[in-house]
Amino acid sequence: MIKVGIVGATGYTGQELVRLLLPHPDARIECLTSNSYRGKKFSSVFPAFESLVDLELMSTDDLAEIIERCDFVFFALPHGIAAGLLKDQALAETRVIDLGADFRLRNARDYQVWYQLEHPWPEGLSKSVYGLSEWRRDRIREATIVANPGCYATSVELALLPLAEAGLLGDTIVDAKSGVSGAGRSASIDTHFNECNESIKAYKVAAHRHTPEIEQELGSFAGQQKRITFTPHLIPIQRGILSTIYCSLPEGVGIDEIRSLYRESYASEPFVRLLEDRQSPETRWVAGTNYCDLSINIDERTDRLIIISALDNLIKGAAGQAIQNMNIMSNFDETKGLSLLPRFP
Amino acid sequence: MIKVGIVGATGYTGQELVRLLLPHPDARIECLTSNSYRGKKFSSVFPAFESLVDLELMSTDDLAEIIERCDFVFFALPHGIAAGLLKDQALAETRVIDLGADFRLRNARDYQVWYQLEHPWPEGLSKSVYGLSEWRRDRIREATIVANPGCYATSVELALLPLAEAGLLGDTIVDAKSGVSGAGRSASIDTHFNECNESIKAYKVAAHRHTPEIEQELGSFAGQQKRITFTPHLIPIQRGILSTIYCSLPEGVGIDEIRSLYRESYASEPFVRLLEDRQSPETRWVAGTNYCDLSINIDERTDRLIIISALDNLIKGAAGQAIQNMNIMSNFDETKGLSLLPRFP
Amino acid sequence: MIKVGIVGATGYTGQELVRLLLPHPDARIECLTSNSYRGKKFSSVFPAFESLVDLELMSTDDLAEIIERCDFVFFALPHGIAAGLLKDQALAETRVIDLGADFRLRNARDYQVWYQLEHPWPEGLSKSVYGLSEWRRDRIREATIVANPGCYATSVELALLPLAEAGLLGDTIVDAKSGVSGAGRSASIDTHFNECNESIKAYKVAAHRHTPEIEQELGSFAGQQKRITFTPHLIPIQRGILSTIYCSLPEGVGIDEIRSLYRESYASEPFVRLLEDRQSPETRWVAGTNYCDLSINIDERTDRLIIISALDNLIKGAAGQAIQNMNIMSNFDETKGLSLLPRFP
Amino acid sequence: MIKVGIVGATGYTGQELVRLLLPHPDARIECLTSNSYRGKKFSSVFPAFESLVDLELMSTDDLAEIIERCDFVFFALPHGIAAGLLKDQALAETRVIDLGADFRLRNARDYQVWYQLEHPWPEGLSKSVYGLSEWRRDRIREATIVANPGCYATSVELALLPLAEAGLLGDTIVDAKSGVSGAGRSASIDTHFNECNESIKAYKVAAHRHTPEIEQELGSFAGQQKRITFTPHLIPIQRGILSTIYCSLPEGVGIDEIRSLYRESYASEPFVRLLEDRQSPETRWVAGTNYCDLSINIDERTDRLIIISALDNLIKGAAGQAIQNMNIMSNFDETKGLSLLPRFP
Repeated sequence: MIKVGIVGATGYTGQELVRLLLPHPDARIECLTSNSYRGKKFSSVFPAFESLVDLELMSTDDLAEIIERCDFVFFALPHGIAAGLLKDQALAETRVIDLGADFRLRNARDYQVWYQLEHPWPEGLSKSVYGLSEWRRDRIREATIVANPGCYATSVELALLPLAEAGLLGDTIVDAKSGVSGAGRSASIDTHFNECNESIKAYKVAAHRHTPEIEQELGSFAGQQKRITFTPHLIPIQRGILSTIYCSLPEGVGIDEIRSLYRESYASEPFVRLLEDRQSPETRWVAGTNYCDLSINIDERTDRLIIISALDNLIKGAAGQAIQNMNIMSNFDETKGLSLLPRFP
Repeated sequence: MIKVGIVGATGYTGQELVRLLLPHPDARIECLTSNSYRGKKFSSVFPAFESLVDLELMSTDDLAEIIERCDFVFFALPHGIAAGLLKDQALAETRVIDLGADFRLRNARDYQVWYQLEHPWPEGLSKSVYGLSEWRRDRIREATIVANPGCYATSVELALLPLAEAGLLGDTIVDAKSGVSGAGRSASIDTHFNECNESIKAYKVAAHRHTPEIEQELGSFAGQQKRITFTPHLIPIQRGILSTIYCSLPEGVGIDEIRSLYRESYASEPFVRLLEDRQSPETRWVAGTNYCDLSINIDERTDRLIIISALDNLIKGAAGQAIQNMNIMSNFDETKGLSLLPRFP
Repeated sequence: MIKVGIVGATGYTGQELVRLLLPHPDARIECLTSNSYRGKKFSSVFPAFESLVDLELMSTDDLAEIIERCDFVFFALPHGIAAGLLKDQALAETRVIDLGADFRLRNARDYQVWYQLEHPWPEGLSKSVYGLSEWRRDRIREATIVANPGCYATSVELALLPLAEAGLLGDTIVDAKSGVSGAGRSASIDTHFNECNESIKAYKVAAHRHTPEIEQELGSFAGQQKRITFTPHLIPIQRGILSTIYCSLPEGVGIDEIRSLYRESYASEPFVRLLEDRQSPETRWVAGTNYCDLSINIDERTDRLIIISALDNLIKGAAGQAIQNMNIMSNFDETKGLSLLPRFP
Repeated sequence: MIKVGIVGATGYTGQELVRLLLPHPDARIECLTSNSYRGKKFSSVFPAFESLVDLELMSTDDLAEIIERCDFVFFALPHGIAAGLLKDQALAETRVIDLGADFRLRNARDYQVWYQLEHPWPEGLSKSVYGLSEWRRDRIREATIVANPGCYATSVELALLPLAEAGLLGDTIVDAKSGVSGAGRSASIDTHFNECNESIKAYKVAAHRHTPEIEQELGSFAGQQKRITFTPHLIPIQRGILSTIYCSLPEGVGIDEIRSLYRESYASEPFVRLLEDRQSPETRWVAGTNYCDLSINIDERTDRLIIISALDNLIKGAAGQAIQNMNIMSNFDETKGLSLLPRFP
């Protein structure tokens, strides 16, 4: 039984970690922190956990103690904080999975450009591994710090890495749509029910921070620099990301070849599902699960690939993948605690 | 005061025509048909019209009488029906605005390919005019039959015709998102609340019937054949289409030039609004109105134009544009009856 | 043409006043205030009003000037502010419609009990009239200050005053359900999309501030003190209140008698619609309109009346009724500017 | 390992049974039927079950075989069918849990009055037990046929039986609000997204079929006939019922006494949670779980009890309670397979 701590347990991602770890057969929740609610019981913030998780919420000031007591510490904090906190901690026996952005970019200058912030601990980058479970499994297994990928990034990378690795990734446009939980739990006009219900908009057009992360990983597997166009949209659902991705079809390559490539890439992956020819991913079939559903389509009139990817931003795009990584790091069965079915309807 | 009839008055589009025409100062609703509810009062189907529109619903069998009594007849029927009905009617004084698909494609063979149906009245095509108000005003003014554009088509054509006409339209991808009213009022599993709420999906990938219509108009203004990739999505809102459109930026052309082009194109248009640099269209600001909001963006990292277009599928994408066309055909002020503000929140 | 000012123009109610007054044929919007956005253009806060309402937002500090310039001033502020502001102003030619709670209760002590605040200007109460249009028309016509009723209160009073006036109102329970716009535009966890979507709850059980207002009016028309049980609920829609009201049926009185009573009470009222026997009010048929729909039902097994009332909380429950009152005070046709149809779907 | 069959597996309730039984440690899904989809794989109807439940859907014509092969057969069919099917079957070793209405009313005449249908098998009623788990545990344990209670009925009975049993239940009004999944999966105008989203209505006012079922159980525990007023409402959420229940407070009894009574009644119940004084049930905290949350409030101004009850209509109101009953009948731990947490957000 491993002991886990969650720093930032009362945001949506932190709370989802608690919910998914609670029934995990080999993990026990040992410490939770929340600077907004410190001193309160976790179950007083989220009444569904009454009598199930009554731990008192600690402060991030107690980090040394938490590291001392836990085998794994998950960080679910806004960017810029985790790296600063970890800088001065000796991890020794403890391993870290950071669900924020601090360890995702390999290059501290990219971080500064995209996050408008000097990286708090550039040396930490070399101690960390990018945690896209299906594609970095071996390095994740040994890592001390795992940078859990962004939600959009997971959705896009799972959809494109087979092409990138095969040297077949051409010009790429990503049109992504996310539910509101992606915006976090802080109260704001933008996430007010009346302001986002019954509407759709694009935001951060050509400027979203998951762009460099996606390009870094595509480039890493392609062996050459990649640039993509990425447009996120906000839609009035609670959970789910659907990415519709347009790629030029490499000359002389047919759709059957592409489909074979994907089947091979994901043949033994428990959490990536390739849909049949005529089926199209829908977020409702992945919401509440750790699955990423993919379909590979071709527009024959324009010779363009259309790859569609659906996942739950809080699970496969955050807490679920983090637990998958914990399982990998612990040599547990990778699906442990993650056999989730969507709630329908 | 012109007299209008609506054939197919109890679908969403037909009902919206009634709602918008009712306060129109120079039009009077004279006849309504509905084969599903024939013989009933319109207000018994839509209780909000109690005492306002108590007309008895006629049958399409009464078409000759309707044409006799009305100056304008709007058709709001599934494709394949209007052309068949009109084939044998002498229109004489009466003018027709068809909100279905029967008169949109100039070429009966395209119709057969995309609608899997032999065109019921190919000769009728030459009597009809494609009714995108802002771009076909002169021909609409004289037309006997106006083919009101599709909802997606309106959204995309308004966004791209300035580029097409200027010879600057390159490779184009359209990623469109529509609310559920686009699917019509028939009961089906796909539009069941529990099946489409809290989810998003693409549908008819690379196969939607608005594709040839958009290509026809882009090609017509560009003076050369155009092919686009078009992917529609269903999202859980009632009204609204947001189209996010990706075009390669023509070499040597800057974003400022493009913006000037659009400003000129739409300078005197009452219903097309160009948003400022940093604003992004949201369907909530056009829902319930006849506006189409556009923003012109550039992804400087990939030299790609991103044009975003928002409109209300039932108004600017259907009933509103039809009334705008009626105003044009009647030499009324084009905005008559269409000074609508969105309901917010 | 009367000149109107709106103090607090950027909340949902203030914005709705602007939207409804803009097309009003005999009123012109002269001044708008907003302490949150002072100095900005109204249309920069609500982009739908671009080029339509570009007035610069003033501060409440400019109240004297506003009163000087306007014939009518609407106040759409949280309770406790309007009365304080008005205390020191000479109204002279200007008349006030307060959409807040400061002038609704006739008794300053009740105000203190329910609002936990000493009334800022008890003397002002005698200068004001409770503005339920259908029931206080004559006094409203002469009033200097009209206290526009609360949204729940309007919904319940219109449903019960015929009974109260006839001396037939017995034991009464009100179970009311409201959309989220009733909670106002301030960002808060409770109105965050993810926190209120896909859920329903009761709130302020037996403690909501509209209770004494309802009891005051029922008592006033009944000629004796009335006590009700009132439970509001929050549901995930934007607009609309449905109140389901349970009353003991007075002995010896039948449902037909009750229905006759209501038909007489509301025979000539343009905005109160009595639905037929088998129809039930739905908020979608009143949302966006100034109507209140009522149905009168009986549970024959328990001899209990069930009266159901539906209205739009921002229109008949706020801005619409305020304009109706302005029309009354100005001797305009009462429906002027209020011929609104619901947007469907 | 017990073997279970589900007759009617492709409705919302049937599908939910599959979803909940799949991870049950001591049950195995053996047979599924669906007359709409017979011959297809279950996973082809519900893609989320791909590779998890690929059983071919049988027909109800195969019922004898299903009974032969299964230890438990769940029926999830519209009323009137299950009793007819079971009439001619020898159950022998097999036990039945019927989630429809056929075995709920003890009296075949009541069934005829409320369901407008002659009961297909009146003799079957004496072989069946009403399956409200918390209140009929001993009889359920021995039963051959369990009549699983209606969703509204469960919500109301759990909220009122402590009072009824103590002889303290006075005059009672139930105002209930349900999500759309309660209406089942058949396509209809009423459940069309555009027709029920953004609206609320009451339906079957004083005429809903769960009324006699509730009255029967209240009467049975009270030892005297009980009549209630019951008004269901439809609200635009997928899952969840909130019942707000108004009872006259028995003379001389205080709120503390009532709360003690409830605490005693439910002290050892794993699935009924009494909320503290100031907390109010919200459907989001029970959706996806087998919990029923209750709060006991008093309106001190009118001496009226307000009891609020929240549950998930498809789980505690249907499939979850059915599995709870199966656990009871099998002498399993009652919570087996039912340790569910709500998905939040």
